[in-house]
Amino acid sequence: MSEPAIHPELASLRASIDNIDAALIHMLAERFRCTRAVGALKAREKLPPADPAREARQIARLRALAKDADLDPDFAEKFLNFIVKEVIRHHEIARDTAIPDTASERR
Amino acid sequence: MSEPAIHPELASLRASIDNIDAALIHMLAERFRCTRAVGALKAREKLPPADPAREARQIARLRALAKDADLDPDFAEKFLNFIVKEVIRHHEIARDTAIPDTASERR
Repeated sequence: MSEPAIHPELASLRASIDNIDAALIHMLAERFRCTRAVGALKAREKLPPADPAREARQIARLRALAKDADLDPDFAEKFLNFIVKEVIRHHEIARDTAIPDTASERR
Repeated sequence: MSEPAIHPELASLRASIDNIDAALIHMLAERFRCTRAVGALKAREKLPPADPAREARQIARLRALAKDADLDPDFAEKFLNFIVKEVIRHHEIARDTAIPDTASERR
Protein backbone atom coordinates (compact mmCIF):
# COMPACT_ATOMS: atom_id res chain seq x y z
CA MET A 1 0.00 0.00 0.00
CA SER A 2 1.32 3.42 -0.93
CA GLU A 3 1.31 6.41 1.46
CA PRO A 4 -1.48 8.94 0.88
CA ALA A 5 -0.37 12.01 -1.10
CA ILE A 6 1.17 14.66 1.11
CA HIS A 7 1.41 18.41 0.51
CA PRO A 8 5.01 19.04 -0.70
CA GLU A 9 5.50 22.03 1.65
CA LEU A 10 4.35 19.88 4.59
CA ALA A 11 6.72 17.08 3.55
CA SER A 12 9.59 19.58 3.41
CA LEU A 13 8.83 21.02 6.86
CA ARG A 14 8.53 17.53 8.31
CA ALA A 15 11.93 16.60 6.86
CA SER A 16 13.42 19.63 8.67
CA ILE A 17 11.66 18.67 11.92
CA ASP A 18 12.97 15.09 11.64
CA ASN A 19 16.55 16.32 11.10
CA ILE A 20 16.27 18.70 14.05
CA ASP A 21 14.86 15.94 16.26
CA ALA A 22 17.78 13.65 15.40
CA ALA A 23 20.17 16.50 16.30
CA LEU A 24 18.32 17.13 19.58
CA ILE A 25 18.44 13.44 20.56
CA HIS A 26 22.19 13.28 19.91
CA MET A 27 22.88 16.56 21.74
CA LEU A 28 20.85 15.27 24.71
CA ALA A 29 22.79 11.97 24.67
CA GLU A 30 26.06 13.92 24.76
CA ARG A 31 24.76 16.22 27.53
CA PHE A 32 23.91 13.20 29.70
CA ARG A 33 27.40 11.78 29.04
CA CYS A 34 28.76 15.06 30.46
CA THR A 35 26.46 15.11 33.49
CA ARG A 36 27.28 11.45 34.23
CA ALA A 37 30.98 12.40 34.17
CA VAL A 38 30.21 15.35 36.50
CA GLY A 39 28.41 12.96 38.87
CA ALA A 40 31.36 10.53 38.89
CA LEU A 41 33.87 13.37 39.38
CA LYS A 42 31.90 14.89 42.28
CA ALA A 43 31.61 11.48 43.97
CA ARG A 44 35.33 10.75 43.49
CA GLU A 45 36.54 14.19 44.62
CA LYS A 46 33.93 14.54 47.39
CA LEU A 47 32.58 17.74 45.81
CA PRO A 48 29.11 18.98 46.89
CA PRO A 49 26.43 17.42 44.61
CA ALA A 50 24.42 20.66 44.18
CA ASP A 51 25.70 24.14 43.24
CA PRO A 52 22.81 26.65 43.47
CA ALA A 53 24.93 29.58 42.17
CA ARG A 54 25.86 27.59 39.04
CA GLU A 55 22.20 26.60 38.54
CA ALA A 56 21.05 30.23 38.82
CA ARG A 57 23.67 31.28 36.22
CA GLN A 58 22.53 28.47 33.88
CA ILE A 59 18.89 29.55 34.08
CA ALA A 60 19.73 33.23 33.48
CA ARG A 61 21.97 32.34 30.52
CA LEU A 62 19.45 30.00 28.88
CA ARG A 63 16.67 32.58 29.28
CA ALA A 64 18.87 35.21 27.57
CA LEU A 65 19.85 32.79 24.76
CA ALA A 66 16.18 31.89 24.26
CA LYS A 67 15.14 35.54 24.06
CA ASP A 68 17.79 36.19 21.37
CA ALA A 69 16.56 33.14 19.42
CA ASP A 70 12.89 34.23 19.66
CA LEU A 71 12.07 31.31 21.95
CA ASP A 72 9.87 31.81 25.05
CA PRO A 73 12.33 32.22 28.00
CA ASP A 74 9.81 30.51 30.31
CA PHE A 75 9.84 27.50 28.00
CA ALA A 76 13.67 27.47 28.05
CA GLU A 77 13.62 27.41 31.85
CA LYS A 78 10.97 24.64 31.89
CA PHE A 79 13.15 22.72 29.41
CA LEU A 80 16.22 23.01 31.66
CA ASN A 81 14.15 21.81 34.65
CA PHE A 82 12.90 18.89 32.56
CA ILE A 83 16.49 17.88 31.72
CA VAL A 84 17.75 18.40 35.29
CA LYS A 85 14.99 16.09 36.60
CA GLU A 86 16.41 13.34 34.36
CA VAL A 87 20.00 14.15 35.49
CA ILE A 88 18.92 13.71 39.13
CA ARG A 89 17.28 10.38 38.20
CA HIS A 90 20.58 9.22 36.62
CA HIS A 91 22.53 10.26 39.72
CA GLU A 92 20.09 8.36 41.95
CA ILE A 93 20.46 5.23 39.79
CA ALA A 94 24.27 5.62 39.86
CA ARG A 95 24.21 6.00 43.64
CA ASP A 96 21.95 2.99 44.16
CA THR A 97 24.07 0.74 41.93
CA ALA A 98 27.51 2.06 42.93
CA ILE A 99 30.18 -0.38 44.04
CA PRO A 100 32.64 1.39 46.39
CA ASP A 101 36.20 1.60 45.01
CA THR A 102 37.51 -0.03 48.17
CA ALA A 103 35.15 -3.03 48.06
CA SER A 104 36.94 -6.32 47.48
CA GLU A 105 33.80 -7.90 46.06
CA ARG A 106 30.36 -6.93 44.81
CA ARG A 107 27.80 -6.35 47.48
CA MET B 1 35.18 39.40 44.49
CA SER B 2 36.78 36.49 42.67
CA GLU B 3 34.99 33.17 42.00
CA PRO B 4 35.88 30.32 44.34
CA ALA B 5 38.46 27.88 42.92
CA ILE B 6 36.82 25.22 40.75
CA HIS B 7 38.10 21.74 39.91
CA PRO B 8 39.57 22.02 36.35
CA GLU B 9 37.85 18.82 35.17
CA LEU B 10 34.50 20.15 36.48
CA ALA B 11 35.09 23.49 34.71
CA SER B 12 35.79 21.64 31.46
CA LEU B 13 32.65 19.48 31.70
CA ARG B 14 30.55 22.54 32.52
CA ALA B 15 31.93 24.33 29.44
CA SER B 16 30.77 21.37 27.32
CA ILE B 17 27.33 21.37 28.98
CA ASP B 18 26.98 25.13 28.35
CA ASN B 19 27.89 24.71 24.67
CA ILE B 20 25.42 21.83 24.31
CA ASP B 21 22.68 23.85 26.04
CA ALA B 22 23.19 26.75 23.63
CA ALA B 23 22.94 24.29 20.72
CA LEU B 24 19.77 22.74 22.20
CA ILE B 25 18.12 26.16 22.66
CA HIS B 26 18.87 27.13 19.06
CA MET B 27 17.70 23.77 17.67
CA LEU B 28 14.48 24.11 19.67
CA ALA B 29 13.97 27.66 18.38
CA GLU B 30 14.36 26.37 14.81
CA ARG B 31 12.03 23.41 15.48
CA PHE B 32 9.30 25.78 16.70
CA ARG B 33 9.80 27.93 13.58
CA CYS B 34 9.08 24.78 11.55
CA THR B 35 6.03 23.75 13.59
CA ARG B 36 4.64 27.29 13.39
CA ALA B 37 5.02 27.08 9.61
CA VAL B 38 3.27 23.69 9.66
CA GLY B 39 0.41 25.23 11.67
CA ALA B 40 0.06 28.13 9.24
CA LEU B 41 0.20 25.78 6.23
CA LYS B 42 -2.42 23.41 7.69
CA ALA B 43 -4.74 26.34 8.47
CA ARG B 44 -4.26 27.83 4.98
CA GLU B 45 -4.68 24.54 3.09
CA LYS B 46 -7.44 23.24 5.41
CA LEU B 47 -5.33 20.15 6.25
CA PRO B 48 -6.27 18.11 9.35
CA PRO B 49 -4.45 19.51 12.42
CA ALA B 50 -3.47 16.09 13.84
CA ASP B 51 -1.87 13.14 12.03
CA PRO B 52 -1.74 10.13 14.38
CA ALA B 53 0.19 7.94 11.88
CA ARG B 54 2.92 10.60 11.55
CA GLU B 55 3.09 10.94 15.35
CA ALA B 56 3.45 7.17 15.82
CA ARG B 57 6.29 7.12 13.24
CA GLN B 58 8.02 10.03 15.02
CA ILE B 59 7.90 8.26 18.39
CA ALA B 60 9.21 4.97 16.96
CA ARG B 61 12.02 6.77 15.12
CA LEU B 62 13.10 8.86 18.14
CA ARG B 63 13.11 5.77 20.37
CA ALA B 64 15.37 3.95 17.86
CA LEU B 65 17.70 6.98 17.54
CA ALA B 66 17.88 7.25 21.34
CA LYS B 67 18.73 3.56 21.71
CA ASP B 68 21.60 3.90 19.20
CA ALA B 69 22.89 6.98 21.08
CA ASP B 70 22.73 5.18 24.47
CA LEU B 71 19.89 7.44 25.63
CA ASP B 72 16.87 5.99 27.48
CA PRO B 73 14.14 5.54 24.78
CA ASP B 74 11.45 6.28 27.41
CA PHE B 75 13.16 9.62 28.07
CA ALA B 76 13.25 10.37 24.31
CA GLU B 77 9.50 9.72 24.12
CA LYS B 78 8.85 11.90 27.20
CA PHE B 79 10.99 14.61 25.57
CA LEU B 80 8.94 14.51 22.35
CA ASN B 81 5.72 14.74 24.39
CA PHE B 82 7.16 17.72 26.29
CA ILE B 83 7.92 19.50 22.99
CA VAL B 84 4.58 18.60 21.42
CA LYS B 85 2.75 20.08 24.43
CA GLU B 86 4.48 23.40 23.68
CA VAL B 87 3.65 23.11 19.95
CA ILE B 88 -0.03 22.66 20.84
CA ARG B 89 0.18 25.73 23.11
CA HIS B 90 1.64 27.75 20.18
CA HIS B 91 -1.15 26.56 17.88
CA GLU B 92 -3.77 27.54 20.44
CA ILE B 93 -2.24 31.01 20.81
CA ALA B 94 -2.10 31.34 16.99
CA ARG B 95 -5.74 30.25 16.69
CA ASP B 96 -6.91 32.64 19.44
CA THR B 97 -5.07 35.62 17.91
CA ALA B 98 -5.70 34.79 14.23
CA ILE B 99 -7.16 37.44 11.96
CA PRO B 100 -9.12 35.78 9.12
CA ASP B 101 -7.65 36.45 5.65
CA THR B 102 -11.02 37.64 4.42
CA ALA B 103 -11.58 40.17 7.23
CA SER B 104 -11.60 43.74 6.05
CA GLU B 105 -10.66 45.01 9.47
CA ARG B 106 -9.37 43.76 12.81
CA ARG B 107 -11.97 42.32 15.11
